[in-house]
Amino acid sequence: MINDIQLDPAAPLQQQLYRQLSQRIIGRRYLPGSQLPSSRQLAADLGVSRNTVNAVYDQLKAEGFLLSLAGKGVFINKDIRSTLNQPDQLPSHSQSTTAPLPPLPIVPKHSLRLGEDANLPFQPGLPDLDAFPIRSWNRILHHQESRRLLRGYDCIQGYQPLRRAITEYIRTSRGVRCEEHQVIVTNGAQQALSLIGDVLLQEGDRVFFENPGYRGARYALSRYGNPLLPVPLKGQVLDVGVLADMGPAKLLFCTPTHQYPMGGILDIAQRMALVEWAQRNQTWIIEDDYDSEFHFHNKPFAAIQGLFDKTPVLYVGSFSKTLLPGLRVGYLVVPEPMVEAFLWAKRISGGETPLLAQATIAEFIESGQFSRHLRRMRQLYRDKWLYFQKRVSEELTGLVTPVAESAGMHLVLKGNFDDVNLSQQLRALGFGSTPLSAHFIGDTQQTGLVMGFASASEREIEAGVSALKSLLQSD
Amino acid sequence: MINDIQLDPAAPLQQQLYRQLSQRIIGRRYLPGSQLPSSRQLAADLGVSRNTVNAVYDQLKAEGFLLSLAGKGVFINKDIRSTLNQPDQLPSHSQSTTAPLPPLPIVPKHSLRLGEDANLPFQPGLPDLDAFPIRSWNRILHHQESRRLLRGYDCIQGYQPLRRAITEYIRTSRGVRCEEHQVIVTNGAQQALSLIGDVLLQEGDRVFFENPGYRGARYALSRYGNPLLPVPLKGQVLDVGVLADMGPAKLLFCTPTHQYPMGGILDIAQRMALVEWAQRNQTWIIEDDYDSEFHFHNKPFAAIQGLFDKTPVLYVGSFSKTLLPGLRVGYLVVPEPMVEAFLWAKRISGGETPLLAQATIAEFIESGQFSRHLRRMRQLYRDKWLYFQKRVSEELTGLVTPVAESAGMHLVLKGNFDDVNLSQQLRALGFGSTPLSAHFIGDTQQTGLVMGFASASEREIEAGVSALKSLLQSD
Repeated sequence: MINDIQLDPAAPLQQQLYRQLSQRIIGRRYLPGSQLPSSRQLAADLGVSRNTVNAVYDQLKAEGFLLSLAGKGVFINKDIRSTLNQPDQLPSHSQSTTAPLPPLPIVPKHSLRLGEDANLPFQPGLPDLDAFPIRSWNRILHHQESRRLLRGYDCIQGYQPLRRAITEYIRTSRGVRCEEHQVIVTNGAQQALSLIGDVLLQEGDRVFFENPGYRGARYALSRYGNPLLPVPLKGQVLDVGVLADMGPAKLLFCTPTHQYPMGGILDIAQRMALVEWAQRNQTWIIEDDYDSEFHFHNKPFAAIQGLFDKTPVLYVGSFSKTLLPGLRVGYLVVPEPMVEAFLWAKRISGGETPLLAQATIAEFIESGQFSRHLRRMRQLYRDKWLYFQKRVSEELTGLVTPVAESAGMHLVLKGNFDDVNLSQQLRALGFGSTPLSAHFIGDTQQTGLVMGFASASEREIEAGVSALKSLLQSD
Repeated sequence: MINDIQLDPAAPLQQQLYRQLSQRIIGRRYLPGSQLPSSRQLAADLGVSRNTVNAVYDQLKAEGFLLSLAGKGVFINKDIRSTLNQPDQLPSHSQSTTAPLPPLPIVPKHSLRLGEDANLPFQPGLPDLDAFPIRSWNRILHHQESRRLLRGYDCIQGYQPLRRAITEYIRTSRGVRCEEHQVIVTNGAQQALSLIGDVLLQEGDRVFFENPGYRGARYALSRYGNPLLPVPLKGQVLDVGVLADMGPAKLLFCTPTHQYPMGGILDIAQRMALVEWAQRNQTWIIEDDYDSEFHFHNKPFAAIQGLFDKTPVLYVGSFSKTLLPGLRVGYLVVPEPMVEAFLWAKRISGGETPLLAQATIAEFIESGQFSRHLRRMRQLYRDKWLYFQKRVSEELTGLVTPVAESAGMHLVLKGNFDDVNLSQQLRALGFGSTPLSAHFIGDTQQTGLVMGFASASEREIEAGVSALKSLLQSD
């Protein structure tokens, strides 16, 4: 019966013999119930040691492929022809290995963008990776790397010293009012946004969304099919005045301290009106405070979360821009009675955040190096912002209109062109950007490019502006 | 007007003055439209430098709290009484800072367990943290820690060298049939399970679940309210024979190579019957292969994913047990046509997996140290397993019935006691465990303790068994 085994003497014999025998039984080339040669016989036929054959037979017996019947020999388990698989119940081709898969999910069309290189100069959201103080950072990593505590399971909410450091930081620098137990460490701001949807959205709940707005949030908040209602901007910021006529909403997403991508900043009157509307309307505000560390003329305006003692605000922050995207650490601040619901949502959707990164960030903040790093980056990005604006004004006047606010890591260059196509052409030349039109919900669209200057060196700014000029002029 | 400012000379003056002025305007103690003293006057009144007052006034002007009217002085912005907030539209208490929050989410009752210390000896799923080769690991970490590539954004699917290493590992050691582009790196196995729910479950889709079974998977797969139908065990493994009468299902969750928590192993006849049922029934099988590395008598049985060329199987693995829980890295293998849908789901729910951990694991595998570590741990856990069984049989015979299979990192001790209470009592004494009854869906419940021996030293095994004996005898 066994005359079709081929062993390659250069590869592990036992593994080959196991695979070939098991596959022939699974494929029903060797039939259930039939007898196999003795291990002595098979070893002789194949020219291998009897130990090899015995080890394979033992494994196959353990897995239920083979049975030893005392005094009779070794047989293929006839139960492999299972009760579920009787010939009279099944058409003959049902044993085929090419049975169709169950129905496949529908792939969203957005996913085409997944293959793009996200680390090109001008990629929005990308910090200056070369300016990161990697030596100081690694010194802290080395303090933490051998601690037994960081090897095991952590609490879902996040490493306690990191939550303490975040609490102190956002209280002092952002005016957020919170206690440590309201802070939840997340796998980047994206997880924070996704958890908000998990916890709060019921079927049919309406979500208000500033338009244009941040796509990552839009995708996270529309994943359950909830209606997403665009709120227009007025003077580059959310138009608070129109909200009163828009009816009920469960959530409102906004970036009050630096509108993404248009760059406007809500003033105090607008902030207060927004919070009062939310209180009257029973709406939760998501305050995405994604790059407030980088305001160039004034201190960043205090977060709306801290305007009053008790605001209906879910505050989202991230270390992807202030430290490194590769860390994937963000945070979420929620009112105390919601903490447990968020922890549960975090637990079932992905569990803890990696500990070593959390501990390293905590020490980096506590040692004062985080503040120093932010000061240095604020100066660096301010210089890049000024230089980029200068080059744009020198080379691209008449071709694009910059929308310049004195903050952040990106600039919008508006213009009447096919921005999707232009962004792809720039990418082919090695420069990142995103089309402005992609940030709009519905029909009201403007065109332009969102360009992140933080990741570009002076030389790259020079080259990127030239490349853009050529593309726009050849249009 | 300003006669209620109190500055502490020992704290930053500018910050204090900013906070007190802004809070009094927000709280309407200083009314919109009213005039402020000149900076010279206020500086003199407070006994601080005029520069301090000027800096605060500038920030408050930038944020829209104050306006300068040429020749007249500095006024509180009267727009702070916004159009949304006219006295005739609002009851007087609407400016209260204690406005109620919008409706709060309902907290699931499971979440009570979140505060538990998950790193006690006998905690199921916890590896031996002291046996981890931390020095070799850190040497590899040091190779990787300064690479610029690891600072930026990565592709959602995972770091390519890690996907290559995982592919090679699961092909060789687990018989999984896959190419690198079918492997998705996840934030622990929990995210993999959650993504499967995100991608595949539509309203009303039925999920079959082995009973008892792994709670993390149960929570992840029931989060959208889909009906979860328990499939009973037979001889400590999923009873494949009953499936034919259970009707349609979108998903079936199982742990074929080491049933969690009961420990049974599906033999080849049962595996083939299961896959054939799934193909006929158009059901996806989730194969959670959570601890197959630790089989003590035989090699672990090959994964059902690789039985045939094309199986309807979503294969889930993790480094939490083979390396460290604190890393939070797992993986998911899906058929090629599903990859894009999973990447999209991962992108919107949390984005990339941290890069430095991925790169370190990749080098640890490629260097051969992962295989060596697994061999050492297999021997170590085998010794602990034997010792724990010996102590249980010596001390607890008649009190509990061990359900022993020759694999894994835990043992179930069945017995007629209040297992929830007993587990809490053990925890109070410093020993982890989970109650067996908590692993059941519905009414068919058995009681006992699930105890992880991998994390316990010989001395802790000794002490834990004694503690359990005392608790059981005092009952």
